[in-house]
Amino acid sequence: MRIGIDIGGTKIIAGIISDAGAVTSTKRIPTGAARTYGAILEDIIRLIQELINESGLQKRAIDRIGIATAGQIDKESKKILFSPNLRWHNVDLRGDIEKAIEIQTCIENDVNAATYGEWKFGFKGVPKDVLGIFVGTGIGGGLIVDGKLYRGFSNVGGEVGHTILNPYGYRCNCGNKGCFEAYCGGWYIVKRVKKRIQEGYRGKIGDIINGDMANLHTGTIEEAYLLGDEFCGHVWQEVIEYLGAGIASLVNLLNPEIVLLGGGVIYSTKHLIDEMKVVLNKRAMTASLHGLQIEKAKLGEEAALLGAAYIEE
Amino acid sequence: MRIGIDIGGTKIIAGIISDAGAVTSTKRIPTGAARTYGAILEDIIRLIQELINESGLQKRAIDRIGIATAGQIDKESKKILFSPNLRWHNVDLRGDIEKAIEIQTCIENDVNAATYGEWKFGFKGVPKDVLGIFVGTGIGGGLIVDGKLYRGFSNVGGEVGHTILNPYGYRCNCGNKGCFEAYCGGWYIVKRVKKRIQEGYRGKIGDIINGDMANLHTGTIEEAYLLGDEFCGHVWQEVIEYLGAGIASLVNLLNPEIVLLGGGVIYSTKHLIDEMKVVLNKRAMTASLHGLQIEKAKLGEEAALLGAAYIEE
Repeated sequence: MRIGIDIGGTKIIAGIISDAGAVTSTKRIPTGAARTYGAILEDIIRLIQELINESGLQKRAIDRIGIATAGQIDKESKKILFSPNLRWHNVDLRGDIEKAIEIQTCIENDVNAATYGEWKFGFKGVPKDVLGIFVGTGIGGGLIVDGKLYRGFSNVGGEVGHTILNPYGYRCNCGNKGCFEAYCGGWYIVKRVKKRIQEGYRGKIGDIINGDMANLHTGTIEEAYLLGDEFCGHVWQEVIEYLGAGIASLVNLLNPEIVLLGGGVIYSTKHLIDEMKVVLNKRAMTASLHGLQIEKAKLGEEAALLGAAYIEE
Repeated sequence: MRIGIDIGGTKIIAGIISDAGAVTSTKRIPTGAARTYGAILEDIIRLIQELINESGLQKRAIDRIGIATAGQIDKESKKILFSPNLRWHNVDLRGDIEKAIEIQTCIENDVNAATYGEWKFGFKGVPKDVLGIFVGTGIGGGLIVDGKLYRGFSNVGGEVGHTILNPYGYRCNCGNKGCFEAYCGGWYIVKRVKKRIQEGYRGKIGDIINGDMANLHTGTIEEAYLLGDEFCGHVWQEVIEYLGAGIASLVNLLNPEIVLLGGGVIYSTKHLIDEMKVVLNKRAMTASLHGLQIEKAKLGEEAALLGAAYIEE
């Protein structure tokens, strides 16, 4: 048995996982991201201890704890160099948990972990070359090459969201212009529509959200597009075209067997994958499309737990 | 000893290569690309036989023949599915040479072979993750991942030139729009300047080429830009910006240890790499730039021979 923990900006989920990939029990707590590292660490340690106690398992029955977290992990020290959603710099979360719980602990970037989890348990580890693309507030990615997670030279490979789709395009939060995520990340899409609504635009989207910006997300923007909303139509057609072009670009480069699509924008929309495929088929090279499968992620929020628990170092 | 052959659209080069990567003798012939496959094959077989005879080696001293050729090689049959510069479809060049010469024969895409040759002999096989980018008439690429050539699911991985830098950009010969090579491939750059000259533009470039379009190439276009030519300045600044953005995009995705730059556009220009680096450093993520080396290819036209001869299946 192993334990996987996914530490996000809003919630922390921990689970006990069998070697076959069955998640036997989970616990979750809010992150409280505004608090200090020390306070959050204490909560994480308590969460793991409760999970073990309630499971009735002996501690020695647990081989490993795997942590999934956003941000860059240093290749050698395994410290979190920078976590954008928790604003942690250079913290040794892995070492601190291992010391407190006394079980061997590993740490991995959350999107890498989710890609690995989907590959190993969702797809039974069969395909050799998989490109994972998670379209949420931003876009994260992971690469499985020859059945292994591709990490790159300094452990930051797989930044699908920061491939460039237009050097003079939308400004990205990374500081560059025209990144894939600046076109297709949920945060950026919503920002564009929100701005227009705040400028006085109503249209079909106005009816759908009914004056409450909390209802404005990629699901409702797609809905407005499908109902013929002019501005949302303009925004959403751009999303479809850039998502298709961005994936075509990656497919031409990497010639994967499977493109695995996950994340909130994928789960909250109805026709995005199908409409993206039309663009992909038009833009990617015939030889790269041959035999290519486009698959939706299967494991939802448990993918990162599973991956972090079972990923190979 | 092994034999490497590079079959290009204009010339065919064959060489005998020692296990340490020394090219002990080479022979070259014009391809005569307009001729039939059979006629070219006969020439290739004669070239190899002469190379062996003149070397004084016994045939059994030669372990393998490695062929490098442009185009897509079928994963299973090893036939050339399509060769753009020779217009071959589905020919079994590998099988035909093996049958005629009776030495084990392998075949590889020429840019993959060149990347592998540079990695194994130019860089002694030390770096684990290398991205090879060859900027010639078009742009080709090769990836070394964890010390092995990355081929992808159907053997067409590494198409760096067809990553997309602007979905609404210049038309590419592949049928898509805005590919990396449509911005930075020599053929496309020259085409843009040639068109303007044919429309009556003179400028500094007119003085440099002195009425002879044969003098128009990326070397002279860069020269005109450096002398302040207005139109060439516009064209060349775009090349610098897109080359930097294209490499930044790949560096963000792949986090390689070395970006290896080769090809005619790289060899014929003076400041392109340095000017590209300024853009790259501005556009790529800090963590991906950390420790990254940008290196010029070292082996010139022998890289593909060497790679094809020694690449692992």
